[in-house]
Amino acid sequence: MLHAEIKSDILRDLVDIVGTIVDEVKLNLSEEGLNLKAVDPAHVAMVDLRLSKDAFESYQADDSELGINLNKIDQFLKLSSSGEVVKIEHVEDENRLLLEVDNVTQKMPLLDTAGMTDPSVPQLDLPVSLTVDGKHLLKGVKASQNISDHIALSAGPDGFEIFSEEDEDMVRLNLPKDLLKQLSASEEVSSLFALDYFSGMIKSVSSGVPIKIDLGSDYPVVLDFEFAQGHGSVKFLLAPRIETA
Amino acid sequence: MLHAEIKSDILRDLVDIVGTIVDEVKLNLSEEGLNLKAVDPAHVAMVDLRLSKDAFESYQADDSELGINLNKIDQFLKLSSSGEVVKIEHVEDENRLLLEVDNVTQKMPLLDTAGMTDPSVPQLDLPVSLTVDGKHLLKGVKASQNISDHIALSAGPDGFEIFSEEDEDMVRLNLPKDLLKQLSASEEVSSLFALDYFSGMIKSVSSGVPIKIDLGSDYPVVLDFEFAQGHGSVKFLLAPRIETA
Amino acid sequence: MLHAEIKSDILRDLVDIVGTIVDEVKLNLSEEGLNLKAVDPAHVAMVDLRLSKDAFESYQADDSELGINLNKIDQFLKLSSSGEVVKIEHVEDENRLLLEVDNVTQKMPLLDTAGMTDPSVPQLDLPVSLTVDGKHLLKGVKASQNISDHIALSAGPDGFEIFSEEDEDMVRLNLPKDLLKQLSASEEVSSLFALDYFSGMIKSVSSGVPIKIDLGSDYPVVLDFEFAQGHGSVKFLLAPRIETA
Repeated sequence: MLHAEIKSDILRDLVDIVGTIVDEVKLNLSEEGLNLKAVDPAHVAMVDLRLSKDAFESYQADDSELGINLNKIDQFLKLSSSGEVVKIEHVEDENRLLLEVDNVTQKMPLLDTAGMTDPSVPQLDLPVSLTVDGKHLLKGVKASQNISDHIALSAGPDGFEIFSEEDEDMVRLNLPKDLLKQLSASEEVSSLFALDYFSGMIKSVSSGVPIKIDLGSDYPVVLDFEFAQGHGSVKFLLAPRIETA
Repeated sequence: MLHAEIKSDILRDLVDIVGTIVDEVKLNLSEEGLNLKAVDPAHVAMVDLRLSKDAFESYQADDSELGINLNKIDQFLKLSSSGEVVKIEHVEDENRLLLEVDNVTQKMPLLDTAGMTDPSVPQLDLPVSLTVDGKHLLKGVKASQNISDHIALSAGPDGFEIFSEEDEDMVRLNLPKDLLKQLSASEEVSSLFALDYFSGMIKSVSSGVPIKIDLGSDYPVVLDFEFAQGHGSVKFLLAPRIETA
Repeated sequence: MLHAEIKSDILRDLVDIVGTIVDEVKLNLSEEGLNLKAVDPAHVAMVDLRLSKDAFESYQADDSELGINLNKIDQFLKLSSSGEVVKIEHVEDENRLLLEVDNVTQKMPLLDTAGMTDPSVPQLDLPVSLTVDGKHLLKGVKASQNISDHIALSAGPDGFEIFSEEDEDMVRLNLPKDLLKQLSASEEVSSLFALDYFSGMIKSVSSGVPIKIDLGSDYPVVLDFEFAQGHGSVKFLLAPRIETA
């Protein structure tokens, strides 16, 4: 059972964030809100998103699973303006999801969730943790895209660095400690990542949003940030690309 | 003979409206203004447009016909800004149309109108007539484009509906009576149309313009609206697509 | 040696102007500023650009040459906002150019200038000289693009004209003497040019900038204008296209 109303902007953020990883996803509903976990087809990136019922204008659900096509929700949201409230309903006898905004109603078939398992999110104990404004990550990614298809993230007691090089071209975004919102680093670490995955994940982040980054050496990076005015949280994991000489 | 001056915005509206149906068209001029009638190449849609001499800054013409390439006028209009006045002249000894705005003069050859007959616009007596704000039609068309390549228009004493479905996907824009500007319906009617034609016609309509819709069951739809601050009127007819099981 | 700081907008203007002619260019540096001369690969167009040290926030250089890839600078500038100051440095032991804005550093290899000779700019004594607002040239070029792939520039004691025709289509921008900022013409002259080259050169000009045009009959046209608040100057030469019957 699902009867809910939510501001279109929050639903759009959810679709943008998860859509960088998968097109089809299983929503896990409970009385307290929704959760989804997804891994991209190449098993390189993972998202774990939670949205509390407090993010909704109204929310009623029981424990259930809904298989959703995010592209269809994205198309529907193009019919709504910022600030409009979208009604969401699970029409159980039709096994369809109903969306409604203004005078427009859309119904879409639900996907079979039988093959959609919840990936288990690994608990990593990484040696460096820092928090940075989203705008810096966006700029660092944009700079790297001029040069290369991979990106190195490095950090240590002095600060955080995004670095790319290809042949004799090099680009570096250096954020000394005082430009970070928080830094906890006992050692120097560095890992290399595929730029297209990293930029996809970052693209869904607004400038101004603080992003927590957990980093090791040749370990996955973990990004944590909030959305929906703090009623939603996102965790991204991205596997490192191991540099071969 | 034609010597006229007109605001570029009105000429642009005319080109946008007629351009959804044909690229080449015959203008029928008289002392009172101009009229054109055109049918699209597949004979599915028809436009009948009138523009009174009162829409012009200045206007002098006698009874005559001009074969016009709308794409060339469209290109010329890209040289003008909103609010600028375009001078239009038939240069008879050259059989060319002269357009002038600011310091730019363009001349283009007139088309042979010998093969361009005026289609006769059928007089239809349809059971339902209603008037709706253009913004609702625009939204209904946009919603349907997510789903299907055809669109059903339905109406009755309770209101007006735009509906599309494809497999298990469905989208509906429902406008109850109180959201319509006018409704006169003695029965329930419904007709199906090709979405690309309908959206083309609607695309030239501004949000906020009232559009009169005459509708039957498996009959053409007739759209009427004004432009040029009421000095111009447009009638679109679109043939129904007969649904086969 | 080069240690300089410059507003990103001025560097962007320089890249836009020279980029219409070549992608790779040799900068000639001196204590007083920089100069570059370049000819396009087809030897139809030439640019001669000077930028005084006064255009820079800070500037230190000695006599030297730097081979630059303009596309890489263009990409770097997309990381900067209007008004930001870019640091430029020649890292001599790496033979690379370093650019820095905000917290982003980019290094790019310098090109071998051995094969990059400075073209000698011909001194032409042309019979007509006039000055026109850049916006008129932009409009004349846009109008001609609707019609043709070449453009005729004509001038005489009465004014200046841009003209194109193709079959029966014709477009003309006529600027009588009083719409010109300056006109010195003892005779009527006219030359024909390839439109893609002329439009490329004009595209880098801002509306509102006065452009001096020197013109003859079947002679190259010379365009002169300033940028960087008068601290930079540009000379474009474009060879005529000789009309064959």
